[in-house]
Amino acid sequence: MKRFEKGAHWFEEVYGAGKADGLVEMQTGLAQDLARFGVEFNFGDIYSRPGLTLAQRELLSLASLVTIGGLEPQLRGHTRGAIRVGCTPTEILETVIHVVQYCGFPKALNAIRVVTDQLIELGVEIPPALGEGGE
Amino acid sequence: MKRFEKGAHWFEEVYGAGKADGLVEMQTGLAQDLARFGVEFNFGDIYSRPGLTLAQRELLSLASLVTIGGLEPQLRGHTRGAIRVGCTPTEILETVIHVVQYCGFPKALNAIRVVTDQLIELGVEIPPALGEGGE
Amino acid sequence: MKRFEKGAHWFEEVYGAGKADGLVEMQTGLAQDLARFGVEFNFGDIYSRPGLTLAQRELLSLASLVTIGGLEPQLRGHTRGAIRVGCTPTEILETVIHVVQYCGFPKALNAIRVVTDQLIELGVEIPPALGEGGE
Amino acid sequence: MKRFEKGAHWFEEVYGAGKADGLVEMQTGLAQDLARFGVEFNFGDIYSRPGLTLAQRELLSLASLVTIGGLEPQLRGHTRGAIRVGCTPTEILETVIHVVQYCGFPKALNAIRVVTDQLIELGVEIPPALGEGGE
Amino acid sequence: MKRFEKGAHWFEEVYGAGKADGLVEMQTGLAQDLARFGVEFNFGDIYSRPGLTLAQRELLSLASLVTIGGLEPQLRGHTRGAIRVGCTPTEILETVIHVVQYCGFPKALNAIRVVTDQLIELGVEIPPALGEGGE
Amino acid sequence: MKRFEKGAHWFEEVYGAGKADGLVEMQTGLAQDLARFGVEFNFGDIYSRPGLTLAQRELLSLASLVTIGGLEPQLRGHTRGAIRVGCTPTEILETVIHVVQYCGFPKALNAIRVVTDQLIELGVEIPPALGEGGE
Repeated sequence: MKRFEKGAHWFEEVYGAGKADGLVEMQTGLAQDLARFGVEFNFGDIYSRPGLTLAQRELLSLASLVTIGGLEPQLRGHTRGAIRVGCTPTEILETVIHVVQYCGFPKALNAIRVVTDQLIELGVEIPPALGEGGE
Repeated sequence: MKRFEKGAHWFEEVYGAGKADGLVEMQTGLAQDLARFGVEFNFGDIYSRPGLTLAQRELLSLASLVTIGGLEPQLRGHTRGAIRVGCTPTEILETVIHVVQYCGFPKALNAIRVVTDQLIELGVEIPPALGEGGE
Repeated sequence: MKRFEKGAHWFEEVYGAGKADGLVEMQTGLAQDLARFGVEFNFGDIYSRPGLTLAQRELLSLASLVTIGGLEPQLRGHTRGAIRVGCTPTEILETVIHVVQYCGFPKALNAIRVVTDQLIELGVEIPPALGEGGE
Repeated sequence: MKRFEKGAHWFEEVYGAGKADGLVEMQTGLAQDLARFGVEFNFGDIYSRPGLTLAQRELLSLASLVTIGGLEPQLRGHTRGAIRVGCTPTEILETVIHVVQYCGFPKALNAIRVVTDQLIELGVEIPPALGEGGE
Repeated sequence: MKRFEKGAHWFEEVYGAGKADGLVEMQTGLAQDLARFGVEFNFGDIYSRPGLTLAQRELLSLASLVTIGGLEPQLRGHTRGAIRVGCTPTEILETVIHVVQYCGFPKALNAIRVVTDQLIELGVEIPPALGEGGE
Repeated sequence: MKRFEKGAHWFEEVYGAGKADGLVEMQTGLAQDLARFGVEFNFGDIYSRPGLTLAQRELLSLASLVTIGGLEPQLRGHTRGAIRVGCTPTEILETVIHVVQYCGFPKALNAIRVVTDQLIELGVEIPPALGEGGE
């Protein structure tokens, strides 16, 4: 149980108290082992490492998810996590804009709509567009 | 018509009698040629080959689909096919868990939810999680 | 404003008058900059280039989108664009069929359903399947 | 043998006389069946279809290959094929440039170097850059 | 050290005695932690699970790797592993042929060349092509 | 010329004085337009934006490149860039380790070898592994 507890600690640093069990309970039966691995490995082994802050990790997670494409539930989750660990809405949205050069426009445009909607749902103020002079 | 019939024979070994025409009828007009190629090539040319059993083929199909990501209709279809050709629910779910090391957690977690739901819909009993001691 | 106007000109050659602003307005706040880059770069810098016709470009866009997979809004948009710039329904559907050899059957079958539905919605007559003798 | 011969006919329309057997001979033993399927399905079933010219098909193939990324031998092969069936070097290179908006810069830049090198090897004159005013 | 030892045990069931340390030593400095996670998680947590045999797991690994594309060192490694845990050369090669319907021909043809070369290097007899009548 | 100069300014903030022209000169003829777009769009439009530091951008670029897989020249380039703009070797290597949960072990292990080799080539001291207690 020790590894799960360590992972749960870091998972809840990102997502809030009591959430790690929820991840496991979203799955049924044998599939709960995969959710448990998600807590133990992703959070217990990886997120717990020094060398990057949780805020840095959340932006890297978003960059990787946007690049893969189509992972709406995870985009929503890590947008919430990023806000919780102190990323600004500008950093979150600029992360999606940054990776367009690698993942192409369709994935980035679909992702930024999902991320913006999640930010709005959280009651976060959306920063205005810079417009052409703003770059 | 001979190649389609050969493919339909193997398609129906996996999915049940009378299903091959249904695959074609899910498409409209010119797109039916692509569905027909799916029956002729995937099932007539590939599934018909000796050297792997249908049960082995269904697990390999699931491994490849989970790795690509996002292909919910095909995940559902091959879960049904896997059960029909004799794969156990444990083998099907462990296949999704196995490929997490290659395709990453978001694709695997989204896929195992879809696969589990399809198994439940089929009335298949879902094996329990092994938990930490069970690995 | 000049680059956006150039991009908007080409965007509207493909999608119809008044549509470029709509693309930007589909996004909120900072995300509008990403939509603006889509107009400026994709249409102002790329679609505006000589050497390929708009009809050629629309088929290439569809080929690339089907290959990536899962990009339903873009598949729908470029199907409309392809018809507007003079591609025939046969060319559009054959483009999806052509790339199955590179992107595999699940992506191609899911995409051709989306493309066919968009063509039907546009009131375009769907060409019949060639059937086996027709290849 | 009839399907292979049909595929070989179309394969050789693209790549030149006597090449279809070469594709099979590049593989050893059981793997030759996969090469044979490539000739039969890709060329006998797909390239043989009316509705798109061979020149259109070669550009679509390049668009799909650049989008997948990393397929250097196939990029080289289809560059040769595209020239043989009458695509201009401008069309071939503009195809790579066109898909950058979907596949991102790293894949497109790596691919255009491979395609340009293959064109140079064929003795084809490389069209000059348009530069900034040329778009 | 206990998790690494458990992973090393299963790693060496697949790759042979003394190999787990070698995986770590292929990396330098901080990167060795990632290799260690590969042993602990992939082999200690995943390969160690009941429900699938090692032979089933090796074929699933190959299916996933071919689908991703371009992972030559891993294709070679899991070909060696598959032979060690008792997969036949026919099963290994048919696995690559099976997934062509999902991952497309270029990835499958490039992979089957790598896999065949590794089998030849191991001194394994390559099964003959079935040819057209053999499907 | 103004957009290229703006892009070149930011490109050279990352890669060093005189490098932007080099990127264009790595390509031949028409392909130079694609390299120019890389400077203008990626660096003039994206890297130039406020909201993320250059150090944040370099780590996000690495996260996206590792996730795509196989882009060795770009991995090497952005490793050099990351060091130039002040990322620590630990941050760079931890970025690769972080994304393994999304992109899988084969891509991450291949990438971290390339990144480590580039760091060694730059004469950067490689931080030691944390080992099991260090997480």
